[in-house]
Amino acid sequence: MAVVTFTSDFGSADAYAGAMKGVVLSLAPDAVLVDISHEIPRRDVAAGALALAQAVPYFPSGSVHVAVVDPGVGGERAGLVIEAGGRTFVGPDNGVLSLATRSPRCVYRIDNPSFRREPVSPTFHGRDIFAVTAGRLARGSPAKEAGPPLPAIVELPAMEDGPLAGECRSRVIHVDGFGNLVTSLCGGRTEGRWQLRCANRRFELCGGRTFCDVAVGDLVLYEGSSGRIEIAMRDGSAVARTGAQPGAVIELRRLS
Amino acid sequence: MAVVTFTSDFGSADAYAGAMKGVVLSLAPDAVLVDISHEIPRRDVAAGALALAQAVPYFPSGSVHVAVVDPGVGGERAGLVIEAGGRTFVGPDNGVLSLATRSPRCVYRIDNPSFRREPVSPTFHGRDIFAVTAGRLARGSPAKEAGPPLPAIVELPAMEDGPLAGECRSRVIHVDGFGNLVTSLCGGRTEGRWQLRCANRRFELCGGRTFCDVAVGDLVLYEGSSGRIEIAMRDGSAVARTGAQPGAVIELRRLS
Amino acid sequence: MAVVTFTSDFGSADAYAGAMKGVVLSLAPDAVLVDISHEIPRRDVAAGALALAQAVPYFPSGSVHVAVVDPGVGGERAGLVIEAGGRTFVGPDNGVLSLATRSPRCVYRIDNPSFRREPVSPTFHGRDIFAVTAGRLARGSPAKEAGPPLPAIVELPAMEDGPLAGECRSRVIHVDGFGNLVTSLCGGRTEGRWQLRCANRRFELCGGRTFCDVAVGDLVLYEGSSGRIEIAMRDGSAVARTGAQPGAVIELRRLS
Repeated sequence: MAVVTFTSDFGSADAYAGAMKGVVLSLAPDAVLVDISHEIPRRDVAAGALALAQAVPYFPSGSVHVAVVDPGVGGERAGLVIEAGGRTFVGPDNGVLSLATRSPRCVYRIDNPSFRREPVSPTFHGRDIFAVTAGRLARGSPAKEAGPPLPAIVELPAMEDGPLAGECRSRVIHVDGFGNLVTSLCGGRTEGRWQLRCANRRFELCGGRTFCDVAVGDLVLYEGSSGRIEIAMRDGSAVARTGAQPGAVIELRRLS
Repeated sequence: MAVVTFTSDFGSADAYAGAMKGVVLSLAPDAVLVDISHEIPRRDVAAGALALAQAVPYFPSGSVHVAVVDPGVGGERAGLVIEAGGRTFVGPDNGVLSLATRSPRCVYRIDNPSFRREPVSPTFHGRDIFAVTAGRLARGSPAKEAGPPLPAIVELPAMEDGPLAGECRSRVIHVDGFGNLVTSLCGGRTEGRWQLRCANRRFELCGGRTFCDVAVGDLVLYEGSSGRIEIAMRDGSAVARTGAQPGAVIELRRLS
Repeated sequence: MAVVTFTSDFGSADAYAGAMKGVVLSLAPDAVLVDISHEIPRRDVAAGALALAQAVPYFPSGSVHVAVVDPGVGGERAGLVIEAGGRTFVGPDNGVLSLATRSPRCVYRIDNPSFRREPVSPTFHGRDIFAVTAGRLARGSPAKEAGPPLPAIVELPAMEDGPLAGECRSRVIHVDGFGNLVTSLCGGRTEGRWQLRCANRRFELCGGRTFCDVAVGDLVLYEGSSGRIEIAMRDGSAVARTGAQPGAVIELRRLS
């Protein structure tokens, strides 16, 4: 009984995600279907790649992960099956699978006709290729049946800028639904007081372990649940307070 | 192990959809539950009918589909079980099931007391009648046990205006989450350049197969994944560009 | 095969809920996972408690219910397992479990190391403690294995102000996605005409059983599907019309 997860920018209002699930269940009636998110910002491949990479490590070995953030659908980009870390991944070759699949990877380009539904819609490979592929894999087909090996895939730029240090430059790589800023820094000591500089505005932060280590309304610097350094406001929104959107360059300096 | 899908305008913030799932699982512990959408615009029966009709063909034979967009709940309208195309449908008789169930249909009016929970809330038949009915069907009860046959159901106006032609009038029947306009035209040749006229504004479109057949920011006319003619903007929102909301009348004229 | 439900304020855009589900499935591959809601307003413990209490009675005996609205995560508050009414509940000791778990309850403080993943993130006990606990329970571990009994939990203030009477004062305890006002009144006769007073504004209501008992655009007073007295506008939004947000004090007076 394979777990199949879904990550997309389809939103929850349309029937697109539902159609994909129907296709998977038609091929693999025992599959356990789990949504990671269908609310990835539209066409934001990097955001989809990050969400997938954050959730995947918690799924059991043998699970199948489909990711469809695919603005180039129907064009030249390949469709991929990737085996990595005991799990199998399905999606377009545009980087969306690159953060969740660490080397060593086995990569296959999907071109086996039994891994698609005919006619294939040029605008919905999610349903007609990737869901079919996920269904076949969930039912036990080996990944290499999907098609020939591929030596390399499209890789997103790294989202790591090293650990937190007493003075460092970093980027906001994600803002979560609580308004917490997830940075490109991974690990490091957060204790003490810090200055955050962002677009010529300055803020004082207090290093801590969790939100309630600081007073309501204060900003806290801590190691987040994905191992990245994050900035939050206790009982509030750090993005509303600082204006630091995804992609913003920020500077952190230890004050004490 | 039956698949049971859910389509509603309940939204994701309230516990209504969860309560329905609890009822189904209480009766049919092995049912596989799948959300098509709970974000149908409030009380928009036609939008619910369309979402259901788009997703259903991809689900396995034998699946059960519950749709609850039901502004007339507790009033005179009947509750229905419909068998059509090897699948079974449950919902109010207000048109929400009419697009997904093609003739021949077998229609039953739900009135068997064992197909409801007592006391039935006059404002939540989704939980107290339709989920109970879906649970019974998922556990193997035949549809005809729900109640007496019904000769006809409420039908929505057809949403098809024929295929795309060199000069034709059509309607926008849905705008998806990407801002793509789904029209009432089904099939036809999209090649060439086109003029779109909509509320006295004119736009040039390029016929294509998929988004990336045109330049970023351009409008493309193509056959969508449901077989309908659609209009999208590459890497953008066609509804924001054209202002053509659901229901808008549009005119398409081939220029070359 | 245990049912495990999830209620949180994580939203649907981030991978947090997905990570929790991966953890549960890693421990209990046969668990049936159901979302009650991940769209509880951020940090609104009372709203989460209410959603959970509304959905839980419809789930089968033996089901496991995880609720994570947890602004104090990583601080002093305990993590709980509660047995009540034939079901088991998992979440922080901040009141979020208090409305769904009626006496008699058996309460345990989670401190068994095998009921967490190491290292525990100080900001995501949902994944590292509560999902692990739910997975263990779904796989059959008895609740008392989680840790020592706890004599009392944090209780939210009661949300009941008695039944509807000819003249009574009440509060809006929830506004649902349709804009319906859910009050703190439970039961009572709604027939007749009523005056609603709210922040010095007055409205006329018609008592009824359901929305379509009144004319389009009129306000209706009825017993809602949870047994509470509610106020809705037929084919519209009562909150938009009256301005009565959650927490608002309202007065109802029977006119006839």
